[in-house]
Amino acid sequence: MAGPYILKPDPSDPGLSSSVTGIDQNGDPIDTKVVTEKPLTLYLNRQEVVTMMTIGDHPDLLAVGYLKNQNMLADDDVITGIDHDEDLDVVVVRTERETDFEEKLKKKVRTSGCAQGTVFGDIMEGFESVSLSEGAQLKTSWLYELTKAINTTPSLYLETGAIHGCVLCEEDKPLVYMEDVGRHNAVDKIAGWMTLNDIPAHNKIFYTTGRLTSEMVIKTVMMDIPILISRSGFTAWGVELARQAGLTLIGRARGKRFMALAGTNRIVFDLDPGQVEDEPLKAKRKGSVPAE
Amino acid sequence: MAGPYILKPDPSDPGLSSSVTGIDQNGDPIDTKVVTEKPLTLYLNRQEVVTMMTIGDHPDLLAVGYLKNQNMLADDDVITGIDHDEDLDVVVVRTERETDFEEKLKKKVRTSGCAQGTVFGDIMEGFESVSLSEGAQLKTSWLYELTKAINTTPSLYLETGAIHGCVLCEEDKPLVYMEDVGRHNAVDKIAGWMTLNDIPAHNKIFYTTGRLTSEMVIKTVMMDIPILISRSGFTAWGVELARQAGLTLIGRARGKRFMALAGTNRIVFDLDPGQVEDEPLKAKRKGSVPAE
Repeated sequence: MAGPYILKPDPSDPGLSSSVTGIDQNGDPIDTKVVTEKPLTLYLNRQEVVTMMTIGDHPDLLAVGYLKNQNMLADDDVITGIDHDEDLDVVVVRTERETDFEEKLKKKVRTSGCAQGTVFGDIMEGFESVSLSEGAQLKTSWLYELTKAINTTPSLYLETGAIHGCVLCEEDKPLVYMEDVGRHNAVDKIAGWMTLNDIPAHNKIFYTTGRLTSEMVIKTVMMDIPILISRSGFTAWGVELARQAGLTLIGRARGKRFMALAGTNRIVFDLDPGQVEDEPLKAKRKGSVPAE
Repeated sequence: MAGPYILKPDPSDPGLSSSVTGIDQNGDPIDTKVVTEKPLTLYLNRQEVVTMMTIGDHPDLLAVGYLKNQNMLADDDVITGIDHDEDLDVVVVRTERETDFEEKLKKKVRTSGCAQGTVFGDIMEGFESVSLSEGAQLKTSWLYELTKAINTTPSLYLETGAIHGCVLCEEDKPLVYMEDVGRHNAVDKIAGWMTLNDIPAHNKIFYTTGRLTSEMVIKTVMMDIPILISRSGFTAWGVELARQAGLTLIGRARGKRFMALAGTNRIVFDLDPGQVEDEPLKAKRKGSVPAE
């Protein structure tokens, strides 16, 4: 049931969660596990770009994916090194070409939803010119296999809650499953993995535990992935942008149910939902508290 | 059961959600409601500060609360006007004193988790000097009353999902309930309301649907509120900061259960949890999909 993952969460990694003690509703002492959250400061060559709160796994993928998704790494940029200093909580990405985003960073603070989890000054630049794969399809049998496999994969979510997950999939196979305290970090880590491994996007499916907001739609489109699935709901602008870009947008995917609000032409109904078992109980987290 | 609210969500407001059509798992057409998400650009006097994605209600409260929570409005600043231009999606806050945050805004982009929903360059400035009310207490009977009242209050969450809520409470009474696509907007709207109405914080209780991350703890402490409750889980740094500040931190508050990981001395166990009914079914949203 855990799927043929290339990369997946390691909930047993002691660096990703810690035990804390407290009291419960009876005043009795309890032990619980909480997810790690620490700052990581990203440099592109000599320039400090951003400090992110992250669980701290895969700083290299997070760094490259962040730069890629912010349009700060061009397709022809050659990465000559990625150095992570664990003591300083710093990661440095070095490129062959000189980079200077001083002006861009200045602009970002004035036009973007900094501190609201939103950047769309520059990120919208390429949005309108993206043309997503028309040939891509999503069989509903794949969708059911994927959500079942993802929900039953051991994860920090199942262990500690309070975390977001994203999964890069192909047909009915989950390939790369990333988690992080910020859902954008999870997306960025997948983008970093795709960039560093030169993975084609046109035949991929993207799954997120998070809501289908404008930002999530923009990132998926900019990553050239034609299909986006979530167990959560939609926002109006997320739906509008998905329709504009021709992205297949599926939300509230739980058990046999789902709802498609854009790009429905890619969906192939090859399985009677009546044959799908409802969400298995073991998918529920210890204490059954959702991520957010 | 809706509580003696001073301000609460208006899920019937046509500006806050819209109907969209799509298809369900059987390929049948469906109508669903999705929450509005639109940009609002904030100016402080002549300076553009930020563009936020918001549902768009209470732009005045959001504007003032954002500035307050970013330490861009001092306690002795006099607000001389708040102008909202609905067509331009712009809100301008004017103050008696000249403001110039050009340097501060420049710094923010370099040291903060911009685009990750995190700002802690300047916001941490005052954190260590805050001393939260020692006399404040939280009776468990209040906690159960509050969560029951909040969960059964008609809201956009119950209507559309994909939204966060925050509630300012006193004893067992919810006072101000704000929702927004970004959880920080919901917090900021409450901070704006408190600022504009000169509301004391030391005897208040803050409830959020979102996770208890470092940012949420920092904002609550900076707002001088001694008690923070969530139905969601914790992050490690959130717990650490709450302990450092002496904030009472309660998570996973659902039905009769909760977990307190910091500031437990303020909790008064005045009600046997065995007498509390478990979370009522009517608290579940249409389609029962959580916010995130």
